[in-house]
This record gives sequence, structure tokens and C-alpha cells, in this order.
Amino acid sequence: MSDSAFDVLGIGNAIVDVLVQTEDKFLTDNNLSKGTMALVSADEQRALYDKSGQAIESSGGSAANTLAGIAALGGRAAFAGKVKDDQLGRVFQHDIRAAGVTYTTSTATDGDPTATCLVLITPDGERTMQTYLGACVTFAPTDLDLEQLQGASVTYLEGYLWDPDAAREAFFKAAEAAHAAGRKVALSLSDPFCVDRHRDGFRDFIAEHVDILFANEDEIMSLFPDQGQSFDDAAAAIQGKVEIAALTRSEKGSVVVTANDMISVPAAKVEQVIDSTGAGDAYAAGFLAAYTQGHELKAAATLGGLMAALIIQQIGARPTASVQHLLSDIVN
Amino acid sequence: MSDSAFDVLGIGNAIVDVLVQTEDKFLTDNNLSKGTMALVSADEQRALYDKSGQAIESSGGSAANTLAGIAALGGRAAFAGKVKDDQLGRVFQHDIRAAGVTYTTSTATDGDPTATCLVLITPDGERTMQTYLGACVTFAPTDLDLEQLQGASVTYLEGYLWDPDAAREAFFKAAEAAHAAGRKVALSLSDPFCVDRHRDGFRDFIAEHVDILFANEDEIMSLFPDQGQSFDDAAAAIQGKVEIAALTRSEKGSVVVTANDMISVPAAKVEQVIDSTGAGDAYAAGFLAAYTQGHELKAAATLGGLMAALIIQQIGARPTASVQHLLSDIVN
Repeated sequence: MSDSAFDVLGIGNAIVDVLVQTEDKFLTDNNLSKGTMALVSADEQRALYDKSGQAIESSGGSAANTLAGIAALGGRAAFAGKVKDDQLGRVFQHDIRAAGVTYTTSTATDGDPTATCLVLITPDGERTMQTYLGACVTFAPTDLDLEQLQGASVTYLEGYLWDPDAAREAFFKAAEAAHAAGRKVALSLSDPFCVDRHRDGFRDFIAEHVDILFANEDEIMSLFPDQGQSFDDAAAAIQGKVEIAALTRSEKGSVVVTANDMISVPAAKVEQVIDSTGAGDAYAAGFLAAYTQGHELKAAATLGGLMAALIIQQIGARPTASVQHLLSDIVN
Repeated sequence: MSDSAFDVLGIGNAIVDVLVQTEDKFLTDNNLSKGTMALVSADEQRALYDKSGQAIESSGGSAANTLAGIAALGGRAAFAGKVKDDQLGRVFQHDIRAAGVTYTTSTATDGDPTATCLVLITPDGERTMQTYLGACVTFAPTDLDLEQLQGASVTYLEGYLWDPDAAREAFFKAAEAAHAAGRKVALSLSDPFCVDRHRDGFRDFIAEHVDILFANEDEIMSLFPDQGQSFDDAAAAIQGKVEIAALTRSEKGSVVVTANDMISVPAAKVEQVIDSTGAGDAYAAGFLAAYTQGHELKAAATLGGLMAALIIQQIGARPTASVQHLLSDIVN
């Protein structure tokens, strides 16, 4: 790769998480599908929030979490995504910058408030999310900083961005600009229901624009439902369609699929799952931090697994413990 | 006591905490006095926030934390304090109600935003606080709900409320209304610097209006600086001036001072201090929950100690674990 100003530029929804510990009964009483992310209106989210227990607020957003993780590992990270100039927007802005991530997207001065995700954490550590996209839907191609894009070794796109129309356009523009500058484009599939909503669009986009794909088992199987219900079939189906597919399998570790190889890496040890929020985001952070430093794919997948294990043993989706040693650990 | 609608009504500053884990060096670099609370302007708080690491937001406020603790213990709790109708105001409102506390104070629709407290948590678990009072300064005597006041067995006042002028007036009105209805008035001294700022005022108020006083070692010694530097002297000085003084001494437990007695209760066992935020608030919660249920002072002090121990072994100032069994534990 030519000289770069950033290892990774992430583009995603800029969201503040509202974290509530709850019982399984709350999910069933409110017809919520455990472990998934649903898009909801401000009113729907508010109605559920009013019924929820005491919460804590913590900056989130899938790609934003990944970039915070990359910065924590010593990588040069930038993020683009839209908040409103309101209290929670300033919270998001503060936290992503405090994480060491360059964040220069202009804030919306009118319209809907900063996006919030109501995260319901059940005793098993699983999280069920209700997202109100708010100001995120106004992220548009004009919000892209082409100089940042062209200067980033990898442009990392969050699948959730496919939902807002203007952001989807920005997706395409970003991928084209990155490739025109000789850079790599990575995509995270984010959520099986997100893949369901946009399967054909994702497939075309992946075929034409994606070098590195991140997906968990449910997501990759949702991308290829015609391949039966087996992970192995889905992994075979993606082989050759992208340069690298990094497929995560929870306690089974991850599989890195390239044109000629399938590299399995076991999961890192986990004592107790406290909050699974951000496991996939953290895996992508570890993987990309190692990858952009020129490490081998196996080392990248190992660091991804270590980061995921660390994040699910704490509350919140961004590392609170020091992780900078992890990058040197995996290569020594 | 006659029939009551509430066990405790708390009156205090309605604040959202912004919690940051930091190193000691950050405190010295910014000339901050460890372990204390300082009142700052919006600009001063913002300047420090901009330099701080990633944060999480969590509803706080000293008396509000105490009332949330009382409700968690099964007590009938109400709170009065002022927020603005903004995002953080809605966060405060949600959380105190979700804790099971009746909260009906009207929100400010213009003027300063909801109060925030920047809480810097050092590795030893100590917290250093910078509070911007925002909308709290508009809490006035007219915000008191006299029916609630007269129906509460104990009206609990937070010493910090002495800082805003209008709130201090509300203090006097609340104490008079409570006593006129044959109820008890409790006061927490909150912070040694708060006592320093208002020593004479506090002394007069205590002599005339307070039945139950809560203070830690530094606070009670700050109230009686002319008694030398010993805790025992300060404890002797308060004896007889109030019906009950519950004095907390960290790892030395607490001492309950009455006209004829000094009851020492050892501290509850603590494995590791994670975040000392809210230790005093939690003690008052345990004490008052037991006291208003008619338990003896020793049992009340024991429950206070258990609640304090629990709160300093978690992040945040309100109980996240179930505590309802604690009340029955101490009396069996």
C-alpha cells in the first residue's frame, strides 16, 4: 500500500447506546426478538424506554465502536457519521475523539435528534436492540471527506448504513473513491435481519466493491439462504467473491476465507459473558488493526478473537481496559 | 408516626453524572483536589470534559441516589429536584422513576440545561467531582409539593442544596412544613467544602430544624473546626444538638450518636473498591429504609454499611444488583 494518513476510516451510524439490564420476560412481554437489532420510530423507542429500568448511556454505533477499538490498539483511526448538535450528539463527539479517533463530520443543526439505541441486556449477556436512527438518516455523500477516504488504507463500511437512503448512496461513493485511490474496502454485514432487508443489494455491492467482508454465522447464512442452512456451505459460497471473508462463530472462533484457503482460529478464553454488545465490532477492530500493520491473516483473526473476548466480559462496546499490548502479544 | 404516604421524601440537586476513569496525573495536571466536589461553570466543566477520556453517563445527585436506594430496599420514596426539559433531563427523569421513586417536580422549559457532574474516577476508586449546577439553581420554594412533604415520615435534605440561593430558601420552607405535620427532618452534610462554604448557616439550621444528621468524618470535623482535629471531639460536639447523628468513617464503619448513647457499628466487608461514588448516599439509604420501618438504630447503621459496601464495589452510585433481601437479612 502507498503511504496512508489513516489505517482505517470507518463510516457508520453515530449512535448513543442506552443500556438497560433486564429479564427475559421483558422481551417476551414486549414481543422483542432476542439478540437482534430492530429499527424503530422515536415514539416506539420512547414507549419501550418508559417501561425499562434504570439505564446508563454510552457512545455506540457499530463502526464507531470498531474504530475506537482500532485506536485503542494503536492504529490510526478516523470515523464519519452524523449526529445532531444536541446533548447526546456532544456525548458521541466527545467519546469518539477521546478514544483517539479523528472525527470531523459536520453536525446537523436542525431536524431529528442524535440517534439512540435502546440496548436490553438479559442475564445471559445477550443484547436486544431497538434503534431510532434520528440524525443518522441525513448522512449523505456530501458528508464524505474524500481526502480522508483516499488517505486511509482501508475504508470500513457498516452494513447498518444500508438502511438510510442517503447513507447508502454515500456507501457507493466511498467505495469508488477508495478503490480509485488504490485502497481496500471492507464491509461488515452487521445483523442477519439487515442482510434480509437488503440481500440483493448487498450481494451486488459485495461482488463489485468489497475486498474484506466481516460476518457472523447468521449473517453469512442469511446472505446465501439458497445454500441450505449450513455454515460450511455459506463459507464456500463466499469463497472467491471477496479477497478475504472473516467469519465469526462465537465460541467456535473464526474462519478466514481467501480464494485458496480457509484458516480456522479458535476462540479466546472467556470466563463469563457480561454483555455481548460489540463482540463483532471488537473482532473487526482487532482484525483490521493487525491487518493494516501487515500481519498475517491468522494473527489478525487471533487479535480479533482476543478483542471480542475482552469486550463481552465488560459492560459496553468499547474497550475500557488497556489493550495496546495485545497487538505485540499475538505476533511474539 | 401517623400514617404516611412516603417513608422518605428527598430534596436535592437533580444531576446526570459523566463518569470517566482517569489517572492521578490528570488530577494534578489540572489542579484538582482529589476526593472533593467543586462547583464550576459550564465553560470550566466543558474545558475539563474536552480533555477527559471516554465517559459513560449515569443519573446521579446525592439525595436522588439515596432515594433510589431506599426504593430498591422496598421503601416508599419520593424525590424533588429540578431538571430542564432536555435530553439529559429526560434521562434523569426516566431513571429516578424507573428506580421506583415518585418524581413530580416540573421541568424547566428555558434557561440553563440539566445539571451535570464530571466524575473523575482514579485507579484507587476515589472520585473527584466537578459539578455544573445548571437548571438546579432554579429549584425554588414554589417547587415544593406540600402534600408530599406532609405525607412523608422523613424529609431528607441534601447539603449541596445550600449552594443555590432559591433552593436554600426551599430548605427552610420544607423543614418547617415537615415539622408542622409532625414529621422528621434529616440532613446530609454532603461534602467538607460545602460545610466550609456555609458553616454558620448549617449550624443554625441544624440546631433549629434537623432531627437526623448524616456526615462523614471530614464533614463533621469541618462543622466543628474549633473542637480540634479529632473525630471523637466532633462526635461529642454534635451530641444532643440533634436527635440522631449517623457519622460514617469509611473502613472504620459508623457511629450513631444520640443524646445518651454512641453506637459503633463495624464496616461491611469490601473485596475491592471499584468506584467510591455514592458511598455516603447509599449509607443514608440503608439507614433511613430501616429507620422508617421502625428498626433499631444499630440495625439501621448496619444496613447503611451494607449498602455503602455494595455501592463502592460497582461503577455508579445507584444499586444495579438486587438489594431487597438486605433489609430482612439485618433483622434476622
